[in-house]
Amino acid sequence: MMTFIQQKSALRLSAYFPILGWLKGYSRSDFSNDLIAGIITAILLVPQGIAYAMLAGLPAQVGLYASILPPAIYALLGTSRTLSVGPVSIAAIMIASALSAPELVGQGDPVTNAMILAAETGIILLLLSVFRMGALVNFISHPVLVGFTSGAAILIMYSQIGHLLGIGKLSCGLDPGCYVNLFQQSKPVAFLVGVVSVMTLIFFSKPLPRFLTHLHVNPVLVTAMSKSGPLLVVLAGAFIASKLFADYGVDVPTVGSVPAGLPRFSFDIVYADTWELLLPAAMFIALIAYVESIAIAKVTANLRRQRIQPNQELVALGTANLAASLTGGMPVAGGFSRTMVNFSAGAVTQMAVLIAAGLLAFAVVFMTDVFESILKTSLAAIILVAIAPLVEFNSILKFWRYDRSDGVAATATLIGVLVMGIEQGLGLGIAITLLSYLWRTSRPHIAVVGEVPNTEHFRNINRHEVHTWPELLLIRIDENMTFANAGFIENYIHCQVVEYPDVKHVVLILASVSYIDTTALEMLENLQTSLTANAITLHLAEVKGPVMDKLEQTHFVKQLSPGNIFFRVHEAVNALIS
Amino acid sequence: MMTFIQQKSALRLSAYFPILGWLKGYSRSDFSNDLIAGIITAILLVPQGIAYAMLAGLPAQVGLYASILPPAIYALLGTSRTLSVGPVSIAAIMIASALSAPELVGQGDPVTNAMILAAETGIILLLLSVFRMGALVNFISHPVLVGFTSGAAILIMYSQIGHLLGIGKLSCGLDPGCYVNLFQQSKPVAFLVGVVSVMTLIFFSKPLPRFLTHLHVNPVLVTAMSKSGPLLVVLAGAFIASKLFADYGVDVPTVGSVPAGLPRFSFDIVYADTWELLLPAAMFIALIAYVESIAIAKVTANLRRQRIQPNQELVALGTANLAASLTGGMPVAGGFSRTMVNFSAGAVTQMAVLIAAGLLAFAVVFMTDVFESILKTSLAAIILVAIAPLVEFNSILKFWRYDRSDGVAATATLIGVLVMGIEQGLGLGIAITLLSYLWRTSRPHIAVVGEVPNTEHFRNINRHEVHTWPELLLIRIDENMTFANAGFIENYIHCQVVEYPDVKHVVLILASVSYIDTTALEMLENLQTSLTANAITLHLAEVKGPVMDKLEQTHFVKQLSPGNIFFRVHEAVNALIS
Repeated sequence: MMTFIQQKSALRLSAYFPILGWLKGYSRSDFSNDLIAGIITAILLVPQGIAYAMLAGLPAQVGLYASILPPAIYALLGTSRTLSVGPVSIAAIMIASALSAPELVGQGDPVTNAMILAAETGIILLLLSVFRMGALVNFISHPVLVGFTSGAAILIMYSQIGHLLGIGKLSCGLDPGCYVNLFQQSKPVAFLVGVVSVMTLIFFSKPLPRFLTHLHVNPVLVTAMSKSGPLLVVLAGAFIASKLFADYGVDVPTVGSVPAGLPRFSFDIVYADTWELLLPAAMFIALIAYVESIAIAKVTANLRRQRIQPNQELVALGTANLAASLTGGMPVAGGFSRTMVNFSAGAVTQMAVLIAAGLLAFAVVFMTDVFESILKTSLAAIILVAIAPLVEFNSILKFWRYDRSDGVAATATLIGVLVMGIEQGLGLGIAITLLSYLWRTSRPHIAVVGEVPNTEHFRNINRHEVHTWPELLLIRIDENMTFANAGFIENYIHCQVVEYPDVKHVVLILASVSYIDTTALEMLENLQTSLTANAITLHLAEVKGPVMDKLEQTHFVKQLSPGNIFFRVHEAVNALIS
Repeated sequence: MMTFIQQKSALRLSAYFPILGWLKGYSRSDFSNDLIAGIITAILLVPQGIAYAMLAGLPAQVGLYASILPPAIYALLGTSRTLSVGPVSIAAIMIASALSAPELVGQGDPVTNAMILAAETGIILLLLSVFRMGALVNFISHPVLVGFTSGAAILIMYSQIGHLLGIGKLSCGLDPGCYVNLFQQSKPVAFLVGVVSVMTLIFFSKPLPRFLTHLHVNPVLVTAMSKSGPLLVVLAGAFIASKLFADYGVDVPTVGSVPAGLPRFSFDIVYADTWELLLPAAMFIALIAYVESIAIAKVTANLRRQRIQPNQELVALGTANLAASLTGGMPVAGGFSRTMVNFSAGAVTQMAVLIAAGLLAFAVVFMTDVFESILKTSLAAIILVAIAPLVEFNSILKFWRYDRSDGVAATATLIGVLVMGIEQGLGLGIAITLLSYLWRTSRPHIAVVGEVPNTEHFRNINRHEVHTWPELLLIRIDENMTFANAGFIENYIHCQVVEYPDVKHVVLILASVSYIDTTALEMLENLQTSLTANAITLHLAEVKGPVMDKLEQTHFVKQLSPGNIFFRVHEAVNALIS
């Protein structure tokens, strides 16, 4: 029997280790579901891990290592039951951009720098959790995120064209002649393998599951078969490369030697001197890693009426990234495709993720020989097919139709990413969001109101037939009063006063105001002074309780006599109209 | 007789040249008022112009030149009838800081750099006007402005201690021994003149006018006498310096040679190569110049029921700064003290400013001999007495009491200015304001409501005795729904759904929502999907007209059947409770 204190500490412990929450009631049927989901996810994760390492400009094992310990750590600490943490495409292109920055040339090797990026990402996420700053992700609005991922996806696809043609990295920019040359240099066999791979992957992604579902095949089996497309493409490519090409002397680039065995813990990165140089990139990676993870975690949790604790997610993702940095990995996040595969394959708990991580560990120990002959062309095909849906021109068009300023933000972010660079584009998007937000909140909704005849209701004089009085100006302010809109409100009231020269009383109706900041208070004091100088009296009506509590100690309200504050607009009218 | 078109173009012309508005009805009595105000202001402006040039680290004539053409240009273009534009203290210390930046050492002479700063300030203000970005000043909340001016004023006072002691610039930092040394090096005669000057100025500023008012002296005469304090101090100091000190060989630093004659137009600054280096400082100077000018312009205009056009003010101030840069001046702004003198001396229109500018031009042509022997100690005394009221610890304490986050912003800005530097401190304050604003708006007011028995009113279940139904969740959202709070709202609703397991219908009451951005719309779509997955139906109630117009085209509302949107909460309850 547990004592009360034991129960309480068990509760507290499960806040830090959410795994304890579900492990208690874990059943045999849960396990069989998780086992199947884990195997299916692992089938996807092996080629994806290698592909995203290549995308980041890193050796294959870095992506595999990042798929073992980090998801296992997340399984212990994360509050989502189905989020699958590991290398993700958008973070990979951000890593590639960070590692190829001109100021890093000749500074440390890429693998060490990737580990440092993971360490910094982890530390930043943990600091955000300590200071409860998870709300920072609010900075990234949905349109900016869509513009950003679309732009990053286009960059990723561009970066894979060279691999698809079998000629390595492209650097043609906007020179058309260069592209023509490239096609002439391309290796036809690689290109053929690439095209066939892309077509196979497209067939596996949509038509195959649809066809199988039509045949009433078990849904889990459908998921398993459709998600094994990448593995099939990679293995078939590797087989062809090692058998046929070797006989005919055709040279097509492969992944090359991958060390066998599990990663070792290492703290060597602390001695590297690129920490400071990598920090800005790490901040953006941390932001995007968190935004992407929390978004997908919420989607899956809400579908099953489960809860996500945003702050605990910072802890879990931060620790997972630290784990990646200590075991030769790259920055990790909760990925959309890997999580959706896990979820739709029937994963019930993080046990599925632990099983997948175990299978990857097995692969790293025993299957590295197979990985060595994987064609880069196959990987490029996997990346292209995985990334294409992230280019959401359609959504961006929808933003334009729904809200022009959101359309501007999404488009500017997209173009910024393509023209200025990944981090710069994201920074531009955030800046535009903030500016347009401030601009919008600086123009609050305000209405001059009048009395609906024979009622105690008051409505906008521009929209309704209402009764007004020349000596009385009733102004309803529909938003919180802050530094962002104090100037607008002041200007509005003064314009009204200039327009209606007979006004003797101004009544501000604050029914919708739940907050007045210092700047707005200062504005009200100035307003009172200048109205008084013009022989006009200022009154308040329908002030909310918490607002009144704060105002009560101020000079402003002491200047207003208590008789100048009315509970209802109706009372104000009765008192001021003689 | 004017044709209609002539009338219209005259109207349009007076929008660009507000001077045409008041010049038409200008009367003889207006002129006599403006003449007196102009003379009184000029008496103040001569010593102030020289003092602020010294404060900025520039020769005396730079401050005088900036007091001639720029205010005259503002008089033509500005919408304030009483704003006095010219050198101001806060801008002066910002100029000093910009000119002494380490990267500028050995780059161009200070006068040229000050002219470039003025040109850049002017161009920035004009660009802000072209893009209608005057609302940018909303970034600077009242607490940040007070923290900033207090910090800058402390820096200014510190910078004048050396001049007051007659030993020039201080650079002691935090070393107490250095200060002891300084007092030993100080020139006793200079120090004596300084102390007497400060005491005279304090006497002139408050006790003298109070005494004269007590004696029923004409108020305009009171203002004139009290504002001539600085001129008296300067002239008395200069007289003593030139007569007595010369006889006894006492050496006290004076302003030194001031070239006689009006400034010449010169476009030479375009060839200088410090434009880029000075640009960041110019941005901050432009921001502060505009904020300070518009604030004081509003105060004086509102007292007389006149209107300020913020965008036209950008044009006027921008052009005034360009005029300063072309006539050997420094960046200018509408100053608090100079405007208040002009206003309280009875100025009716900008004619007063034109008269003052004319008098300054006269002084520059005929009185430069007198200026040469002005003591730096006297100027330091003028600056100290003028600046001391800007240190508003009292206001900062008030902010803390009223709103902790505003207190933090003001204090951080003040400390930032003192420790990190003028521009950095201002930047810090703006960043804190924005962050705390976003943080605050990210936690909107939301309430679960129930029915007040036997009425059609619905109130917060935590504050009122209301009736609720287990299958029905009524949630009132009290703020606009945007990227900043979409996550919070979604989380709140999901928590409620987890807490009340019997809920079958969720009704969102949007009576206070006048705007839903794309991020919030996306959130609503996700919410609907996840509620549906849990066999819960989503409904809306009291949606405002403009919000409904926008929502109508969206997928989200098409998913909600029309029956799911209710005009009144009461109707929703009747329909959903069977």
